Amino acid sequence: MSKGELTRERILAQAAPIFNQRGFAGCSMQDLMDATGLEKGGIYRHFESKEELAAEAFKYALRRAVKNRTEDLERIAGSMAKLRYVVTRFVEAPPTMPGGCPLMNTAIDADDGNPALRKLAKIGLSDWKKRIATLVEQGIQAHEIRQDVEPRKIANTIIATLEGALMISRMEGTKEALSDASASLNNMLDTIVPTAPKK
Amino acid sequence: MSKGELTRERILAQAAPIFNQRGFAGCSMQDLMDATGLEKGGIYRHFESKEELAAEAFKYALRRAVKNRTEDLERIAGSMAKLRYVVTRFVEAPPTMPGGCPLMNTAIDADDGNPALRKLAKIGLSDWKKRIATLVEQGIQAHEIRQDVEPRKIANTIIATLEGALMISRMEGTKEALSDASASLNNMLDTIVPTAPKK
Repeated sequence: MSKGELTRERILAQAAPIFNQRGFAGCSMQDLMDATGLEKGGIYRHFESKEELAAEAFKYALRRAVKNRTEDLERIAGSMAKLRYVVTRFVEAPPTMPGGCPLMNTAIDADDGNPALRKLAKIGLSDWKKRIATLVEQGIQAHEIRQDVEPRKIANTIIATLEGALMISRMEGTKEALSDASASLNNMLDTIVPTAPKK
Repeated sequence: MSKGELTRERILAQAAPIFNQRGFAGCSMQDLMDATGLEKGGIYRHFESKEELAAEAFKYALRRAVKNRTEDLERIAGSMAKLRYVVTRFVEAPPTMPGGCPLMNTAIDADDGNPALRKLAKIGLSDWKKRIATLVEQGIQAHEIRQDVEPRKIANTIIATLEGALMISRMEGTKEALSDASASLNNMLDTIVPTAPKK
C-alpha cells in the first residue's frame, strides 16, 4: 500500500465505528475530524464528500463483520453443521466494532434516506441471503436437508431472527435474546433434515 | 381537549412520521417546521426542546403501532390463536405511519445515543415482551401450551423474527421476508402445543 492508501484505510478504520454508532445524519464532520485527528481538508483529500466516506466506511465495516461471522466456516464439514455454525458465530463472536451490526444499522438508517447507503445495504443483505441459501441448496443436494425445503425461506428466517435478536440484546444489555434466538433457530434447523425411515 | 392540547396532538401527529423516517439526528428543526407549518416558537410553546418533542412523538407513534397490532386481539379465543393472530397482524396490518416500526427504528437510532429515547424504546420492548409472554403463560395454564415452554423465549423469538423480517422486507421492497417469518413462526408455534397422547 502507498502512503496515501494507508491513510485512506486508517480514516476508514476510524470513521466506520462512528458512523456505525451514530448513523449518517448523527455523525458530523467534527466527529470525523475528532476521530481521525485530521482537518476537514485532510479527510477530503481522500474522500470526495461525507456521502462517499460513509459509503466506504460502511463497506469497510461490513467486510469486517462478514469476515468475523464466516471465520473458519469452510473448515466445517457438512451443510447442516455449517448452518448451525453461522448461527453460533453471529451469537458468540465478539463484535468487530462498537455499535452493533453495520448491515442492520445502515438498513434502518437509510431505508427512508441516503440512496447510496441504502443500495449498499441492499447488496450486503442480498449477499448474506445468497450465502445462507447456497448452504441450504448444498444440503439438499447432499440429502442432508429435505428436498421440499425452500432455501430462501431458511435464509430469511435465520437473518431476521438473528438481526432482531441483536436489536433486543443491545436494548436489554444482555445476551439473553441472542441465546433464545440461537435455540429457536437450532430447533428450526432440526426440522429441515429428512425424517429417519420408519422401522 | 383544549385548543392547546389539540395543537400539541396535531404537532405530534405531524412530527412522528418525520422522526420515524429520518431518526432523531436526521430530523432538523426546519423539517419539523415544514411538517407542522409552525414557526420554531410555535413548536416550542408546546415542547421544551427537540428532545422532548422526539420523545413524545415516539410515544405517539408507538401507541398507534401497538393499537394497530393488537386490534381485536381480545376477541380471539384461546392463547394459541391469539399468538398466531399477533404474528399475522404484524405481517398484514397496513402500517400506521411511514418509516417502518417505530420501536425498531428508535432502538437502532438510540442504542448508542439519546438516553431518553433509548429508555422509552426499552420500555416499549419490555411491554411488548410482557404482552406475548403473558399469552404464553395463559396458554400453559389452560394446557393449550406445554408446561416446559419458556414464555420469555417465545416472546424473544417472535419479536426478533418479526422485526428482523420487517427490516429485510423494507430493504427489498417486498413482503416476502415477512411471509417467510410468519410461516416459520407458525411452525415454531406448532411445536409448543402438548403432543397428542399416543394411541
